[in-house]
Amino acid sequence: VPLAREANDLVAEAAARHPARLAGFAALPTADPGAAATELERCVRELGLRGAMVNGLPMHRFMDDEFFWPILERAEALDVPLYLHPAQPPPAILDCYYAGFKPAVGAALATAAWGWHIETGLHALRLILSGAFDRFPRLQVVIGHMGEAIPFMLARAAVQLSPQVTGLQRPLDDYVRDNLWITTSGFFTVPPLLNTLMVVGADRIIFSVDYPFASHEAGRSFLGSIPLSQADREKIAHGNAERLLKLPLPA
Amino acid sequence: VPLAREANDLVAEAAARHPARLAGFAALPTADPGAAATELERCVRELGLRGAMVNGLPMHRFMDDEFFWPILERAEALDVPLYLHPAQPPPAILDCYYAGFKPAVGAALATAAWGWHIETGLHALRLILSGAFDRFPRLQVVIGHMGEAIPFMLARAAVQLSPQVTGLQRPLDDYVRDNLWITTSGFFTVPPLLNTLMVVGADRIIFSVDYPFASHEAGRSFLGSIPLSQADREKIAHGNAERLLKLPLPA
Repeated sequence: VPLAREANDLVAEAAARHPARLAGFAALPTADPGAAATELERCVRELGLRGAMVNGLPMHRFMDDEFFWPILERAEALDVPLYLHPAQPPPAILDCYYAGFKPAVGAALATAAWGWHIETGLHALRLILSGAFDRFPRLQVVIGHMGEAIPFMLARAAVQLSPQVTGLQRPLDDYVRDNLWITTSGFFTVPPLLNTLMVVGADRIIFSVDYPFASHEAGRSFLGSIPLSQADREKIAHGNAERLLKLPLPA
Repeated sequence: VPLAREANDLVAEAAARHPARLAGFAALPTADPGAAATELERCVRELGLRGAMVNGLPMHRFMDDEFFWPILERAEALDVPLYLHPAQPPPAILDCYYAGFKPAVGAALATAAWGWHIETGLHALRLILSGAFDRFPRLQVVIGHMGEAIPFMLARAAVQLSPQVTGLQRPLDDYVRDNLWITTSGFFTVPPLLNTLMVVGADRIIFSVDYPFASHEAGRSFLGSIPLSQADREKIAHGNAERLLKLPLPA
């Protein structure tokens, strides 16, 4: 808890020094969800941070576990998003899915080439399936990497996990479109962008780079070259982020 | 081994009774790869089967394990494809990724909604990364479900797993386009089809239904309605399958 506070104070100071360039997400002590909710509130109300980022599976558990729901509840109450960012998969997953290669190959496969994204897509799906968005219907969650394979899989998953099966209030697609935001992070080719645009629409896609896994130059070049209307390009480039994160428009 | 032989004899008899309607894949006793290779050869040369289907992870291992390579070697020598079909993920994966929901939801999430596809996509990627297609360059592998998320993830994976990292002879994309075939199985919406078409092209996509997870009617309706040239629609509907499986054209 003290380490998270210290980190968040540092982030807030940096953002305060460059308010036209930087805004911050809070780091949360997720192992103590009550303290994490309190720290999130401090970060938003006192420090001006714009939400929180959770990396991977806290304690090897997904956030759909009700243990963590005090964090979800507070994020909804404060009207700030949670960003589900990947981290190294748990040891059981590494052993079963990603072992057997030389270290550099196994490490890439388990992380930035496949494993990170699949696990984070699953994390978002599990949040939906747990009923978290029925309980906290205004909660907003951000996932990166063009949606972590969800846009490709969604139509299939929505049929297999219909409200008759899940007992949820709404079809899976509705939660994806109303409670998730998708950043581009390092997915700088047209086929997955087009897939994502056709599934969630230009209002829910936010430009991001994913440095050092992709370069700023690659991101800028992609953003300039994608075959979109100028209106949709501007939403993706900055408009959606300003809306979600309540960012001041540049002077 | 005897059970596989018996099953394959039954399949061959059924196909022989309706040669204009049916053709078969062999079931292989994968736990004994030498016997599996022998049975594959018998099925192709004596029974006229068109390849083999492997369901899930034999012995909870991926086929990139060199233990199984006698099967890959024989499939290449016989010029018949292996179809990597999903099955229930191993217990460690079920525990770590798919537990915590009521049975119907957990079961769907682990299989037809997400888990099957992610695991089979990983299976194909692992085959590539193992060097199996450098060793058996003419080997052809079929995966279903519009490519099991690979078309969405490929550009990202290919950058993270470049030949400099993998030590493979070629970029990841090359193996996907030259050694994999993708069937549509139950992915009957335009966004993932378009993604897949843009990544692998109409020459490598084969129509399939995935009954009972999707209906024949849904498949037929999709095939008729997708916005493609008639030439590409015919490749996907039957031409590619005839070419890969050396099927006789209907009289």
